[in-house]
Amino acid sequence: MISLNNNVKRKLQFILDNYEALSCKSYKLPCGANIIDMGIEAKGSFEAARLFTEINMADLGTVTYRDYVLEDGHSCLAVEVMTSEPILALRYSQIASYPIGDGMIGSGPGRAVARNKEDYCFDIPDSYRDTEAELVVLGVQGQRVPDDEIAMKIAEECNMSPDNIYLLVHNNTSIVAAVQVAARILEQTLHKIMMQEDQSIEYALEFARGFALVAPVTLDDDEAMGKINDSLLYGGRSQYWVKCKSDEEITRILPKLVTEYSKDYGRSFRELYLEADRTYYKMDLNIHSPARVEIFNMNTGNIFSQGNIREDIISSSFFKNKRKKV
Amino acid sequence: MISLNNNVKRKLQFILDNYEALSCKSYKLPCGANIIDMGIEAKGSFEAARLFTEINMADLGTVTYRDYVLEDGHSCLAVEVMTSEPILALRYSQIASYPIGDGMIGSGPGRAVARNKEDYCFDIPDSYRDTEAELVVLGVQGQRVPDDEIAMKIAEECNMSPDNIYLLVHNNTSIVAAVQVAARILEQTLHKIMMQEDQSIEYALEFARGFALVAPVTLDDDEAMGKINDSLLYGGRSQYWVKCKSDEEITRILPKLVTEYSKDYGRSFRELYLEADRTYYKMDLNIHSPARVEIFNMNTGNIFSQGNIREDIISSSFFKNKRKKV
Amino acid sequence: MISLNNNVKRKLQFILDNYEALSCKSYKLPCGANIIDMGIEAKGSFEAARLFTEINMADLGTVTYRDYVLEDGHSCLAVEVMTSEPILALRYSQIASYPIGDGMIGSGPGRAVARNKEDYCFDIPDSYRDTEAELVVLGVQGQRVPDDEIAMKIAEECNMSPDNIYLLVHNNTSIVAAVQVAARILEQTLHKIMMQEDQSIEYALEFARGFALVAPVTLDDDEAMGKINDSLLYGGRSQYWVKCKSDEEITRILPKLVTEYSKDYGRSFRELYLEADRTYYKMDLNIHSPARVEIFNMNTGNIFSQGNIREDIISSSFFKNKRKKV
Repeated sequence: MISLNNNVKRKLQFILDNYEALSCKSYKLPCGANIIDMGIEAKGSFEAARLFTEINMADLGTVTYRDYVLEDGHSCLAVEVMTSEPILALRYSQIASYPIGDGMIGSGPGRAVARNKEDYCFDIPDSYRDTEAELVVLGVQGQRVPDDEIAMKIAEECNMSPDNIYLLVHNNTSIVAAVQVAARILEQTLHKIMMQEDQSIEYALEFARGFALVAPVTLDDDEAMGKINDSLLYGGRSQYWVKCKSDEEITRILPKLVTEYSKDYGRSFRELYLEADRTYYKMDLNIHSPARVEIFNMNTGNIFSQGNIREDIISSSFFKNKRKKV
Repeated sequence: MISLNNNVKRKLQFILDNYEALSCKSYKLPCGANIIDMGIEAKGSFEAARLFTEINMADLGTVTYRDYVLEDGHSCLAVEVMTSEPILALRYSQIASYPIGDGMIGSGPGRAVARNKEDYCFDIPDSYRDTEAELVVLGVQGQRVPDDEIAMKIAEECNMSPDNIYLLVHNNTSIVAAVQVAARILEQTLHKIMMQEDQSIEYALEFARGFALVAPVTLDDDEAMGKINDSLLYGGRSQYWVKCKSDEEITRILPKLVTEYSKDYGRSFRELYLEADRTYYKMDLNIHSPARVEIFNMNTGNIFSQGNIREDIISSSFFKNKRKKV
Repeated sequence: MISLNNNVKRKLQFILDNYEALSCKSYKLPCGANIIDMGIEAKGSFEAARLFTEINMADLGTVTYRDYVLEDGHSCLAVEVMTSEPILALRYSQIASYPIGDGMIGSGPGRAVARNKEDYCFDIPDSYRDTEAELVVLGVQGQRVPDDEIAMKIAEECNMSPDNIYLLVHNNTSIVAAVQVAARILEQTLHKIMMQEDQSIEYALEFARGFALVAPVTLDDDEAMGKINDSLLYGGRSQYWVKCKSDEEITRILPKLVTEYSKDYGRSFRELYLEADRTYYKMDLNIHSPARVEIFNMNTGNIFSQGNIREDIISSSFFKNKRKKV
């Protein structure tokens, strides 16, 4: 079985060799753990964001930038994401479900080394584990750079020397956040599938392609938080190619996978987030969905789709002066 | 003169070093020849398909993925293909015209080493030959992995030790097939030109750019065969920039280069293929064409075009439940 | 501070190792300076053009090709350009403002080493200087390959041995020219900002994204010159993300940044160029502008835009037989 962490070595080394050109910082914590600052003290860059995201998918997926012209005439950055190993790249790597302490959540291939019981993605029989990892690589979105205490807890949970721990960090208002959250469009879809009572389709997922609009970097934290999530809720589309015996396995869950299934459909993430006292889990969980999902059955040749990208909502979310006055 | 086979070493080595992350298999036949399974026993991947195609063009062309939204609202994978050396990349490499035995046809740079009389592309005076090749790299689309007998025949025709033969193999229902056939849009156009009585334009071809819609992977063999060919017939467009003394050299052959010139225009490949008892050469040869061709004359500054991409036919070809009921 | 010239070493080495596959030539002048011919005696290629442009931006920006279908139904090559370090990549590298002699102008990272008083971009306090450069890399668009006299003047102005000077050369009618000029869309915008009385916005520029249509290679020199400039004037759009305290800093200069501000708006570059006796500086300087500029204020979340891409003008510029008969 492939080692997800060893698989990102090449791109990690590229970042370490070129951190300055990527507008990043690279240094060690006192305990020896390695910090790559891609958007806290450092500014980060489009290329840093792309590399972060591919590493966060265990380098089993690709991210491509694209210029997209909205109906309102403005250009918008977009990402296209592809993977042929959705379970490894997403469930066992990109999903952010490893609580590393101090309220921060880790994502990326390092999760498959850490023996942390709260990471529900590994809570199944015969779960993948990266037993050959020579290093541990985690993406961390937070307001601060993790300190020694956190790094040493990770090292312990991974049974790895801190010298071999690499933490790629950024905050909500960085370009890395704007890109890597939008590029979670495939992961967001898989996560929705995992939340269904009937998850049988998960093991039929073969190939995945996604598209999402990326918010321009905005310095206000609530605004940024709203925009990067609207990228998924109203600006993201995923397409899965699956091997299902019957189309019914698809059609019975598809309507529940998209944002329009939420009672709060149509309202901006920022508004709902503030109403929920900035607490993700107090929001209607159905809102954390992709705008549109398409599923193609490789067995029957049929395709099914639900939901739509809402450029009108994206325009008013991303550009404050395009919001309708009330 | 450049060695087409030596030119693919870098990308070939990348595949050998990363075959597991590419969802491929890599092993040797008893005779020593190297098999890279990219879609028979192995699943293959989007990245494997891209690398296969670039290697098949002797790494003198590029393939880029793109998300394209069809008129019917569904997203469709597409490829963009570019080359600045169309004759070397296509005639002497990508065209599949080397019968390697057992009904299988080889493509790729290795053709320029093999002394096989049936490969008509080399049947001209002063034909390119790769006399400096240190290895032989061939792409093979077939239902089975070639065996020792085939590999040793290739080695003999190339006057090369089997240890230096690399066969990149996949079948019709793999992602590699779906991508690499669609990415033959430039080669399909060149091949049509070569079939004309007046082929003078061939030596005027300077730059080439193409676009083609890629079918989602479908497990039924006839369905897959139909879709990957419809990618070219109804979903592919090429643009050549040529140095012709007069525009008339272009306009007199252009109408014959596209699918709409065929008496069977508008019917799906699968239907015609089944009618022809699954025999490619029993079909109207004019059907094996690109949907649209554009030719720009670098001398006169004029552009000419013929044919059109037919998204309606692509929708009903790729997605069974979008077919009109009869 | 990053060394812009050292930063391009990796891509420069790639060109030196693969010049034949890139349809380039590589050799030394008698004095020892290195010439990479990418479009004078050599033909050049799409990949050569992409690499030239990224090197010319000090490898702090990316260039991606894209297939774009014009309203007239013809496909057109386009480039997407991105940088997260606009001042370093553009002002101190890509802008062509170093007169190297014989009427030729140098661009690229080497400018930041040369002590040449005519290069106005460095004529400010605390200007960036590449003091760590181990080599000097310049892009040169000209009708001839620079000779020993020019190369030795550059070596002297850079206080560098000729052996460490690399000149990447091409002429107006090459594919490299068509691409790299179109890809100046961000630089053209920055240059316009620098020409304003109030340039305060320059230091607020954080991220930049651009799009421009690329002309097919045309052999007539005046035609080529017209087309590659129309790429910017009528076929190019830039989007800057800025940190301005007030939106007014943006809105007061935005209308002056685009082509439509020129009294000659709507007329083709070729026509105006010929009227001005082929002298760039005799033309209305306001015409040397991007077709459209969008500026997003990261502080306020507001976006502003001016001008539009004019596909009608591009069609008749790029394709002679699409010009309206008078």
